[in-house]
Amino acid sequence: MLKISRTVRIEWGDCDPAGIVYFPNYFIMFDIGASALFEQAVGMTKFQFLKAHNLVGYPLVEARANFLKPSRFGDDVIIETAVTEIKRSSFSLQHRLTNQGELAVEGFEKRVLVGRDPNDPDKIKSSPIPPEVVARLSGR
Amino acid sequence: MLKISRTVRIEWGDCDPAGIVYFPNYFIMFDIGASALFEQAVGMTKFQFLKAHNLVGYPLVEARANFLKPSRFGDDVIIETAVTEIKRSSFSLQHRLTNQGELAVEGFEKRVLVGRDPNDPDKIKSSPIPPEVVARLSGR
Amino acid sequence: MLKISRTVRIEWGDCDPAGIVYFPNYFIMFDIGASALFEQAVGMTKFQFLKAHNLVGYPLVEARANFLKPSRFGDDVIIETAVTEIKRSSFSLQHRLTNQGELAVEGFEKRVLVGRDPNDPDKIKSSPIPPEVVARLSGR
Amino acid sequence: MLKISRTVRIEWGDCDPAGIVYFPNYFIMFDIGASALFEQAVGMTKFQFLKAHNLVGYPLVEARANFLKPSRFGDDVIIETAVTEIKRSSFSLQHRLTNQGELAVEGFEKRVLVGRDPNDPDKIKSSPIPPEVVARLSGR
Repeated sequence: MLKISRTVRIEWGDCDPAGIVYFPNYFIMFDIGASALFEQAVGMTKFQFLKAHNLVGYPLVEARANFLKPSRFGDDVIIETAVTEIKRSSFSLQHRLTNQGELAVEGFEKRVLVGRDPNDPDKIKSSPIPPEVVARLSGR
Repeated sequence: MLKISRTVRIEWGDCDPAGIVYFPNYFIMFDIGASALFEQAVGMTKFQFLKAHNLVGYPLVEARANFLKPSRFGDDVIIETAVTEIKRSSFSLQHRLTNQGELAVEGFEKRVLVGRDPNDPDKIKSSPIPPEVVARLSGR
Repeated sequence: MLKISRTVRIEWGDCDPAGIVYFPNYFIMFDIGASALFEQAVGMTKFQFLKAHNLVGYPLVEARANFLKPSRFGDDVIIETAVTEIKRSSFSLQHRLTNQGELAVEGFEKRVLVGRDPNDPDKIKSSPIPPEVVARLSGR
Repeated sequence: MLKISRTVRIEWGDCDPAGIVYFPNYFIMFDIGASALFEQAVGMTKFQFLKAHNLVGYPLVEARANFLKPSRFGDDVIIETAVTEIKRSSFSLQHRLTNQGELAVEGFEKRVLVGRDPNDPDKIKSSPIPPEVVARLSGR
């Protein structure tokens, strides 16, 4: 399965009055990881990919995180994002954020690929993951 | 157990290019629910409560959410936040966001009350929940 | 000219490690003020208004703010948003945030109404403000 | 005067339902530029710098931006941040965001260095910029 890793600087604005990362910002970091992984898989930015396939996005069905150790502004953390499961229209990702070699946050996401609902363009509808994308996300 | 409910307007800035709520913003909405519930329990704002007890916050140990239906800007949703468990230093909350009467997002959080670590003021350390706060969160 | 006022609770997540509002969040509060003012003017949510007129939004051309006094989580502030100028496709707003009766932040915005560019739907193009909206924003 | 430049990827979560950057996020990008410039000036992260000098931060007195062209997710933009003025406790920065070689956003900030008010630790108070920091920000 495909897996990427990147270094992320924790910024002042990521943190709360306790001086540590405000937890919703970890989900933003993981979302950026999902985009980066997809970009590596398909060789297109998310904008290009959605446009090429006439899609709307890959919103979440489920998100989870365990916060093991706090991180604060100025810390450079490593975020690994890996595909853990691929189904017809959905896929799952695991994120591991380490700080100074220690696991600090562990995240899990289930996402579904969606396009506009042909019956109501204000709505979204799941869309099958193209076979070549399945292959790339699988690391094949 | 204590439970509160409030109406929240989904704003333009809460939404992403798909026109629906960008999922980390649901965790922000739930965090505001946690503050509101605590304020109702203790009769003090979070600022006043932390100061009164010389605490730093109640960061998350765990967060989860299931996203069942999208919401978009202009929607007025109802968010119910309820205490589900109270332990020595930690407590758990459940959040239910309904849109037009339908459950749209379900969230779960486990949080721990923390103060400054007396041995290293740059660090945080769990702190027991004061008995009167336990009583109020329990709905007693 | 139309003017609205609302009370806003400063939340934990609005604040930075200094314990005061992280300044970009003031611009979010002002943006919510712009949506609220427009909703009062036209009697439709932003979603309904954009859809009714086949528009994309009213992004900013210019934003300014003076930060006079800090606010912190738990503070209830009052934000007044007023129309100060209306042109063919653009309009200007002034925001005044007061905390305990004292002016804390003063903001100014110039925005332009936009729709999809008919020649390139990936682009946006300014669109004249409908006369009835001009009338309502003018307070007529 | 000191000047830095960095490439920034516009992310999905930076954008609004119009598909373009939600404007408060530009101020976050500029704030990160301010931290990066300071880090280059003093050779310490913001966390280290504030701790070394017993300071609280360098909040804004004034912020302005002109939005000339929209950017969208997947765009790689260049943000230049330059010191334009240094006074006793305050300093001014200019930010220029270019997209594909064209100026897209121009920002200006005036910030003031602050520490805890010795008479009331809940308040902040301006603090003179250390001479060696003035020298480095000046590009000397």
